[in-house]
Amino acid sequence: MLGKFITLEGGEGCGKSTNIKFIEQLLKEAGIPVVLTREPGGTVLSENIRQLLLGRDQEKISEQTELLMMFAARAQHIKHIIQPALEQGTWVLCDRFTDSSYAYQGGGRGIDSATIAWLENFSQNNIRPDLTLLLDVLVDVGMARAKNRGKLDRFEVEKMQFFNKVRTCFLEIAKQQPKRVKIVDAAQELSLVQEDITQLIQKFIHG
Amino acid sequence: MLGKFITLEGGEGCGKSTNIKFIEQLLKEAGIPVVLTREPGGTVLSENIRQLLLGRDQEKISEQTELLMMFAARAQHIKHIIQPALEQGTWVLCDRFTDSSYAYQGGGRGIDSATIAWLENFSQNNIRPDLTLLLDVLVDVGMARAKNRGKLDRFEVEKMQFFNKVRTCFLEIAKQQPKRVKIVDAAQELSLVQEDITQLIQKFIHG
Repeated sequence: MLGKFITLEGGEGCGKSTNIKFIEQLLKEAGIPVVLTREPGGTVLSENIRQLLLGRDQEKISEQTELLMMFAARAQHIKHIIQPALEQGTWVLCDRFTDSSYAYQGGGRGIDSATIAWLENFSQNNIRPDLTLLLDVLVDVGMARAKNRGKLDRFEVEKMQFFNKVRTCFLEIAKQQPKRVKIVDAAQELSLVQEDITQLIQKFIHG
Repeated sequence: MLGKFITLEGGEGCGKSTNIKFIEQLLKEAGIPVVLTREPGGTVLSENIRQLLLGRDQEKISEQTELLMMFAARAQHIKHIIQPALEQGTWVLCDRFTDSSYAYQGGGRGIDSATIAWLENFSQNNIRPDLTLLLDVLVDVGMARAKNRGKLDRFEVEKMQFFNKVRTCFLEIAKQQPKRVKIVDAAQELSLVQEDITQLIQKFIHG
């Protein structure tokens, strides 16, 4: 039986890092073999591409270059990590995936969604998430949390307006694909967020 | 007045490195300001992508990843080097360009040309070469020359059959676009190759 592919999405400071480990734990407790990975990244080459993408000290990256590098890293990640794991029945839990390309490069930078859809079809070998949890929080709340975490990366220093467009796009995707994408209110206290996550994951596991 | 964009193409061991400096010299002697650059590469980020592409010691790069990285580097190169130079009237002389994507990733690896054309349209902001010199030599002759030059990179160790497909694709492009692409017989002695190049460049400069 094929493994399931779960992705976690959301804007800055939404709590992805904390909650993805929580989800991994839930799956392990249910006896499900799981690979925890992230985008951009997940393979040696893809992590090298990530370093180039997130570096703050280099030349300005053009919009086209950014999008192509994201999908280059993704194609490699799918081919070498995600697809092989799913095919041997291991579940894959990924911190960000293609919804982030629609939200950041599409909604945020204004690249049209047909372009992103073309790249999605070209790069992903028909691999799509089975379940996506969208950790949703107001942009100013998320930004304040992210700032307490340390140095901001290139994406994090972008303006509030940009993040508002990103959030709107994530919510739009959730609205269009309600079966796959579940919104979690990440403004709540962590214990309540994790109660919601537990319910969603248990329902997904058991059917 | 806009600068002109000249590219040099050809398979392994065709003499690109030697002859691109010769062409640069011809243009300078004609009083033409010229930027000499190369692909993949040409900017700090694009050269970093080149290193990832040509490295021999890493995981196998998927076909999609390779093609997307090539165009990511190209979009950056066009935006930051090629287009600004052309707009200020400087000519650009580039060692490899999109014809190499058609030849290596298309002809060589079998990615269909419609895919490459889509990426060309998305990445290049309507920039296309005004003149392309294709240094053509039989694959076995070129490979023998390349081997004398030192350690082969990842592309160079590919099989002869692959390079034959690449050469066929280059020749097909030249046949389809005879006004832009001029074939130079690179099997000749260097002095004769450079006589042919001089004639083609002088004709292009003087119209």
